[in-house]
Amino acid sequence: MKTIAVIMGSDSDLAVAQKAMDTLREFGAPYTVRVLSAHRTADVARTFALSARKNGFGALIAVAGMAAHLAGALAANTTLPVVGVPVASEGFGGLDALLSTVQMPSGVPVATVAVNGGRNAALLCLQMLAIEDETLTKELDDARTRMAREALEKDALISARYSSHLEE
Amino acid sequence: MKTIAVIMGSDSDLAVAQKAMDTLREFGAPYTVRVLSAHRTADVARTFALSARKNGFGALIAVAGMAAHLAGALAANTTLPVVGVPVASEGFGGLDALLSTVQMPSGVPVATVAVNGGRNAALLCLQMLAIEDETLTKELDDARTRMAREALEKDALISARYSSHLEE
Amino acid sequence: MKTIAVIMGSDSDLAVAQKAMDTLREFGAPYTVRVLSAHRTADVARTFALSARKNGFGALIAVAGMAAHLAGALAANTTLPVVGVPVASEGFGGLDALLSTVQMPSGVPVATVAVNGGRNAALLCLQMLAIEDETLTKELDDARTRMAREALEKDALISARYSSHLEE
Amino acid sequence: MKTIAVIMGSDSDLAVAQKAMDTLREFGAPYTVRVLSAHRTADVARTFALSARKNGFGALIAVAGMAAHLAGALAANTTLPVVGVPVASEGFGGLDALLSTVQMPSGVPVATVAVNGGRNAALLCLQMLAIEDETLTKELDDARTRMAREALEKDALISARYSSHLEE
Amino acid sequence: MKTIAVIMGSDSDLAVAQKAMDTLREFGAPYTVRVLSAHRTADVARTFALSARKNGFGALIAVAGMAAHLAGALAANTTLPVVGVPVASEGFGGLDALLSTVQMPSGVPVATVAVNGGRNAALLCLQMLAIEDETLTKELDDARTRMAREALEKDALISARYSSHLEE
Amino acid sequence: MKTIAVIMGSDSDLAVAQKAMDTLREFGAPYTVRVLSAHRTADVARTFALSARKNGFGALIAVAGMAAHLAGALAANTTLPVVGVPVASEGFGGLDALLSTVQMPSGVPVATVAVNGGRNAALLCLQMLAIEDETLTKELDDARTRMAREALEKDALISARYSSHLEE
Amino acid sequence: MKTIAVIMGSDSDLAVAQKAMDTLREFGAPYTVRVLSAHRTADVARTFALSARKNGFGALIAVAGMAAHLAGALAANTTLPVVGVPVASEGFGGLDALLSTVQMPSGVPVATVAVNGGRNAALLCLQMLAIEDETLTKELDDARTRMAREALEKDALISARYSSHLEE
Amino acid sequence: MKTIAVIMGSDSDLAVAQKAMDTLREFGAPYTVRVLSAHRTADVARTFALSARKNGFGALIAVAGMAAHLAGALAANTTLPVVGVPVASEGFGGLDALLSTVQMPSGVPVATVAVNGGRNAALLCLQMLAIEDETLTKELDDARTRMAREALEKDALISARYSSHLEE
Repeated sequence: MKTIAVIMGSDSDLAVAQKAMDTLREFGAPYTVRVLSAHRTADVARTFALSARKNGFGALIAVAGMAAHLAGALAANTTLPVVGVPVASEGFGGLDALLSTVQMPSGVPVATVAVNGGRNAALLCLQMLAIEDETLTKELDDARTRMAREALEKDALISARYSSHLEE
Repeated sequence: MKTIAVIMGSDSDLAVAQKAMDTLREFGAPYTVRVLSAHRTADVARTFALSARKNGFGALIAVAGMAAHLAGALAANTTLPVVGVPVASEGFGGLDALLSTVQMPSGVPVATVAVNGGRNAALLCLQMLAIEDETLTKELDDARTRMAREALEKDALISARYSSHLEE
Repeated sequence: MKTIAVIMGSDSDLAVAQKAMDTLREFGAPYTVRVLSAHRTADVARTFALSARKNGFGALIAVAGMAAHLAGALAANTTLPVVGVPVASEGFGGLDALLSTVQMPSGVPVATVAVNGGRNAALLCLQMLAIEDETLTKELDDARTRMAREALEKDALISARYSSHLEE
Repeated sequence: MKTIAVIMGSDSDLAVAQKAMDTLREFGAPYTVRVLSAHRTADVARTFALSARKNGFGALIAVAGMAAHLAGALAANTTLPVVGVPVASEGFGGLDALLSTVQMPSGVPVATVAVNGGRNAALLCLQMLAIEDETLTKELDDARTRMAREALEKDALISARYSSHLEE
Repeated sequence: MKTIAVIMGSDSDLAVAQKAMDTLREFGAPYTVRVLSAHRTADVARTFALSARKNGFGALIAVAGMAAHLAGALAANTTLPVVGVPVASEGFGGLDALLSTVQMPSGVPVATVAVNGGRNAALLCLQMLAIEDETLTKELDDARTRMAREALEKDALISARYSSHLEE
Repeated sequence: MKTIAVIMGSDSDLAVAQKAMDTLREFGAPYTVRVLSAHRTADVARTFALSARKNGFGALIAVAGMAAHLAGALAANTTLPVVGVPVASEGFGGLDALLSTVQMPSGVPVATVAVNGGRNAALLCLQMLAIEDETLTKELDDARTRMAREALEKDALISARYSSHLEE
Repeated sequence: MKTIAVIMGSDSDLAVAQKAMDTLREFGAPYTVRVLSAHRTADVARTFALSARKNGFGALIAVAGMAAHLAGALAANTTLPVVGVPVASEGFGGLDALLSTVQMPSGVPVATVAVNGGRNAALLCLQMLAIEDETLTKELDDARTRMAREALEKDALISARYSSHLEE
Repeated sequence: MKTIAVIMGSDSDLAVAQKAMDTLREFGAPYTVRVLSAHRTADVARTFALSARKNGFGALIAVAGMAAHLAGALAANTTLPVVGVPVASEGFGGLDALLSTVQMPSGVPVATVAVNGGRNAALLCLQMLAIEDETLTKELDDARTRMAREALEKDALISARYSSHLEE
């Protein structure tokens, strides 16, 4: 399986990036973690993106806050899919990062997920890799089934405990 | 190449969906167009998503406005990647559709692009399909090169015409 | 009296749903509690909505946050009134859930109440059931009277304690 | 069938109110139309609400913009369900009216629909009246079926015309 | 001097109202405090406003949050100046209350101050009463002078302590 | 009667200021019109405010858009009441001007009215002057009565024309 | 005098950039105009910024809309001052571009001006160059004086024409 | 080197202003600290700005929250560059201060940085002073190099620790 890059703009984004790493490990997918800034280490970020495909990466995850340019800066230098995760900061609650990540100009897309949505970024990358991979597809479908089962168990418990006619 | 589905929630979203179709045709990618509503024809949308993978689809594009549930409703029923395109409507300028599309709960991702970003939705799907496809990768890279060349031509023209020292 | 369904999208919405339950119990109204997700258990939610009327429900309350599709997903599958309660999450303070719940397309309404407004969702359902029910109407009117009386008692206390001419 | 009141705060809201009237006429439901302002004719609005139930009304629709207090002012004086329709005005695109309508305090609910959502306000009232009315339920279900059929016809037309493999 | 009414929509608004009371007491201005809700005790609020002028009030302060209708409901029933103080609540940070208070329709003004701006509401009322009152004008001017002096003292202290050339 | 100043930050604000002038003329109130900018002619604005009271003004109206500092700049130099009218400009729909006008620091209030609310600014000034003026109070009350009568006439016309049972 | 660069992200930003050029020409300041995209021609933008100082530039103006990364991408590659001009696009009225431009991380500043504020961007650059340039300082001061004089002329005209006591 | 003024609107803004001071001290740049309010001590602020250039200042930093007029009030009285730092307050998260600072009218620019961005305000002033100062330019470039090196060290540490293939 191709490797996924989990790139954060600053080590302060680690908690959100960790959700992506945990999800990838859950599926046994190989991943490389980097701290690359569109502004502080722009050249390293650029070089990383330019060589990402030939270095065996299949998709990039960019986790960043405020004027979150990281996903766009990577996307400008590769045609691999780039998934952007806006990080909430004080004040705008992530609206600044969301708009900075999602409102990309025509020609250079970024696949944006929810504010702080590290797990969904990883799942989205896995879904991309699974387009041509039946085994991974099955694992993703199984994960959905498990998630549904857990939700139904909570439903059964809470329904039994809280519904009015079942109270006594 | 796997087929891409371009699904709009209402025929009023056709102009934005058209941008996706035009882009796919530009790359010779096969696509199916549908008008499926998460609310008016929920069952058809659900059935479409449930059988999309076995029907040869590689990715789904969902174009919808207001409380834009279409992308999420499809994503709930497939592990194929779903790309959401929020459509601007009067009043909130697409903020309602953007938040409804991007703020998905953990476990069911939607890859969201810019408001009215039909072309980028198509490019994102092609980038996904290109992860394992060298020919398509080359076509995407070539398109980037063409886009850059056109931008540089505009740069040359405008720079020559407007810069102060070149004016007389 | 017909039963009211209190449905939450996730067990993390329980505190808001609890306000609805408490209000229904206050009026002796029967209610069923469920945890059904528009994304994680979409089929169960759909089935619930499709059979809700014949199963004796009079109105459904949907409590959900973020891209809150639950109310809309239920409303797409029943013509019973669906009351949506947006839940505030970090970042957008409930604006994402509010817009996702209220901005429904023409043809499939959701009756939206305030962010975290669990009590008002229950009261609204009771008011619907009371349209043809004089006893329940009287109970609702009585509750209003009690609420006014308590407000007036607070008014009397605070007015006496804080008004400048009554201070010494 | 009980009568529905369609109340607008100003005659400038007539276009949105008209959508509600058209929908009610489509179902043969009796309705009374009023122009009542929470600020300019507060007493008439109050009196209307206080006597609405005994005057045979089953639900009230309040259509208003800006600091849209109309729905709340009516709801304060009746326990009949009040449906609020925020109207978009220049500047805030209806966000002012939406928040003024939906963010009601605990104890006095307003059932809020989308900005300018006149048709859904009427449908919501009909759904309330249909809780105990099998004939009206059937008419609402039939309307849903017609709406779905029309959507599917558009789907068939657009799919046939725009899908890539069907183009020649 | 005419009395000022400090009216809060709920006893949960007391902290903000207290800032108004403290300011009025600072100027020795008589004030009456009330807890009156536009929704829970609409009739009492209406009666209060209708008779406020003949009861010796010169201006009304309305302190309320969420869909803050209190100021508008009072203003609809008196031509005395009504000052609205939006209160911040969880989620929208007071934007809901601000828009509900300030966006009044033409004909019925509310003088709106900053979110949680209890002190400025009181000062504004005093400034109104001072239009024809030289003594009160002088007291307000003196308060401005004191405020400026305190600010200048802080300026002197902080400037001396923090400026770079004064550090050693 | 004391004179009211209608001050606009730029001649592009004339249309909104005109609404204030028209209202003042309707009541026969004397007014002076000025174009004074907090940024372009800050000294003239300051001098105007400093001498406004002794020059016979009773209240100031400041009409301005974008980073609307005019009302605050005037309020900083007088203890006369200053009414701020935020003007909508392209882009933010007046939100920038509203927040710049209303969010004044403790100690220096501005009485803010709705975006583009020129008429209400004038009415608010008149209400302030009427606190001690029975004749003006009566004129304001009469204007309210006329406004209500006109609203009721529209109510009668629209109700007769549009209500369902009165249609044939 | 050092040259100023006026850089737009796309030729669709020309109208806003033109305001900057016109202002620079008014002061006889030399300027170079470029169309450089942070995403479409990222390498050219990077190279331009890296060599801007040694190529005789004194400050850079970046005009861009949507996820406006241009100013930040330039600022990442030079320690010359970069002035960012957010451009309003449909939907978010420039809020996306404003937040993307201004919310830069610590260490890499962008001097942001108003949405579409091309003229102020140029004035700001001139003010920077004037810090050590008495002649330019005088020209800027003179321009302020002219601006004030024009504003005062408008004041005189409008005041004479519209003030109530001067009407007949 | 010319002195930089760090001006805060209130001593409650000290924490944000401190970030600017710390940065200036890091570069050995002389700075004066003041507490000057556009509303409470408007005259002192005005006098400060009017004489800033002849008093040896090269640039002014204005740190203020809410209806943050300080930067604009200073900019109205000098053609020295003024850098505005919006301060986040409860409720609007700094959006009020950001819009009040950045949306300046044509003719009087303010260079706005991120909400609470004290360090970037100082860096921006230093970059302005460095336009004609090779030594300072080198120090700024060196600081960028150090910042990049620290970021790369974090990258190396986190990459080694968290990347999946390096885990055991």
